[in-house]
Amino acid sequence: MIEIATLPVKDVIPGFHGRFVHTEYSTLGFWEIDKGAQLPPHSHLHEQITEVREGEFELTFNGETKTYTPGMIAVIPSHVEHSGRAITDCKLLDIFLPVREDYRAL
Amino acid sequence: MIEIATLPVKDVIPGFHGRFVHTEYSTLGFWEIDKGAQLPPHSHLHEQITEVREGEFELTFNGETKTYTPGMIAVIPSHVEHSGRAITDCKLLDIFLPVREDYRAL
Repeated sequence: MIEIATLPVKDVIPGFHGRFVHTEYSTLGFWEIDKGAQLPPHSHLHEQITEVREGEFELTFNGETKTYTPGMIAVIPSHVEHSGRAITDCKLLDIFLPVREDYRAL
Repeated sequence: MIEIATLPVKDVIPGFHGRFVHTEYSTLGFWEIDKGAQLPPHSHLHEQITEVREGEFELTFNGETKTYTPGMIAVIPSHVEHSGRAITDCKLLDIFLPVREDYRAL
């Protein structure tokens, strides 16, 4: 049993505070993001599934910019560039497949 | 963009009502489960990550029975038998890796 609140918080980029669970095949990132924080354009080999849990987060990929609110999910395929911006303070769940070895090392 | 609430509900076993998102490498199951519903012992090749979002769910695997509440996560390895019981009405997120082709066919 893992209690998310007990996991250490890693400040990965400015304004992005994450708790991570690494399983055999995936990494879960439970993010608390400060209003106005910017996710610069980037890509990675991992498929990424993003669920907004609180607040509003703007996400851009595949040429589209959309505002995500709770109950919405983005599926960002492997190697697809994406960027984002926290419109409000928000909480997100990211699921990365496979494991983010770079986050394991944080 | 996927809005979870717009997805069709599949009644997979008695008391388990699920909405599913299938990505390239995973299936997400957003469950609403009736109080008292039983998850019979079973196993599958998929790694399963279970997060309780509302209510209380009792989960048994690897010889341990524990009650999960919001903020808790179970990581059930591939092929490990597990069973469960909804102590209250509850909501769970299951992440299955790889895709649950059997759920895609529901």
